[in-house]
Amino acid sequence: MPALPKALFFDVFGTLVDFRSSIADEAERILKPLGHSLDWPAFADAWRDEYQPTMEEVRAGRVPFSKLDVLHRYNLEKILPRFKVSGLSEEQLTNLNLSWHRLDAWPDVTPGLNRLKKQFLLAPVSNGNISLQVDLARRNGFPWDAVLGAEVAGDYKPKPRVYLASCEAFDLKPQDCMMVACHSGDLKHAASHGLQTAHIARPNEHGPGKGEASPSVPVDYAASSLENLAEKLGA
Amino acid sequence: MPALPKALFFDVFGTLVDFRSSIADEAERILKPLGHSLDWPAFADAWRDEYQPTMEEVRAGRVPFSKLDVLHRYNLEKILPRFKVSGLSEEQLTNLNLSWHRLDAWPDVTPGLNRLKKQFLLAPVSNGNISLQVDLARRNGFPWDAVLGAEVAGDYKPKPRVYLASCEAFDLKPQDCMMVACHSGDLKHAASHGLQTAHIARPNEHGPGKGEASPSVPVDYAASSLENLAEKLGA
Repeated sequence: MPALPKALFFDVFGTLVDFRSSIADEAERILKPLGHSLDWPAFADAWRDEYQPTMEEVRAGRVPFSKLDVLHRYNLEKILPRFKVSGLSEEQLTNLNLSWHRLDAWPDVTPGLNRLKKQFLLAPVSNGNISLQVDLARRNGFPWDAVLGAEVAGDYKPKPRVYLASCEAFDLKPQDCMMVACHSGDLKHAASHGLQTAHIARPNEHGPGKGEASPSVPVDYAASSLENLAEKLGA
Repeated sequence: MPALPKALFFDVFGTLVDFRSSIADEAERILKPLGHSLDWPAFADAWRDEYQPTMEEVRAGRVPFSKLDVLHRYNLEKILPRFKVSGLSEEQLTNLNLSWHRLDAWPDVTPGLNRLKKQFLLAPVSNGNISLQVDLARRNGFPWDAVLGAEVAGDYKPKPRVYLASCEAFDLKPQDCMMVACHSGDLKHAASHGLQTAHIARPNEHGPGKGEASPSVPVDYAASSLENLAEKLGA
């Protein structure tokens, strides 16, 4: 086991927040009073399914970096017709898009982060933009030292720059930083750039039983929750 | 008077922290046991005096952006011979350079920020780098929502990009952001890009009676302390 890290970097969507339930709830809250009746979890899934392909356009250099709010909006307008929703005002579209700023954390997250904060520097290293992270932190009480990630690095995970720019922002070598995520792919890339890794089980990320209950790649720590990770790290 | 802002941006060196006394104390703590006896406040002044000329090289595009820690180190090695200090080890030089991460806040700052946090988004918009701001925040209990400023913008104040990138990071128009500083020059530039402004009196920034007791440019608010600003903003 390597020496304990000095900073912990967190994936956010899925790892810290239950975006599927939150987006389903927000969409229902906004669209139902307008007379729409959708399969709300399916709407959340459809929106999220456009996430990787749109970011890939940026990662491949085919479109310049735009913050995730912009990509979410593009994807929203792409999926609404599939669910037969049309005629929303600019204000309604903006409000719906900002659902991603109003996601709720899994119950272990805020207590876990507060324990970890006593011993480690903490930052989100997510593809979500700064204002989105700030709103999630205010809503859920995430005690960040700084907001790092895609917007600061100017590219999207898993491009190397996002991990390495985050280490550099804290003046730390990759081996002194640990990526914490519920996605084995994220951890595989972080490890390939020298970061330590911790997997958090989120077996219900994409609905009941649809999520990683354990990592599919080698990791330094595998934990059932952030509180469990704090325990394993002695925090 | 314009509508209240949604975010407050803070200058840090001078406005929030008493860098002169802190650097003098840190230099004495590190160099005195090595047998050096300097005019410690003069050493702090000399180090700070190199600050603007070195940043100007970056602002003018003559050297690529480097984080302020790098410029501080360059300036440190420039002034040490003037004070007849030589032969420091790499570890001692690094430790001395990191004095800028160990600055103490003026007494009104942490209580003032905690009051303001209830009503406004808060971020440092300083020329100090992210890791420096994180260390100052941990040391003094600054409750930032995000760390913005030079390193995120990739240039140094008062270049327009630093102010405007900070507004954009929070998805706000300049008129919904307020720059808070004890330097009229900083506020003049912020106002020229549409930000609201608040001046904080720091009459002893550069030693007794050497600092701005009041602004020399028009500002939206002039306050004697951060607690006084909180009062004026109804926070």
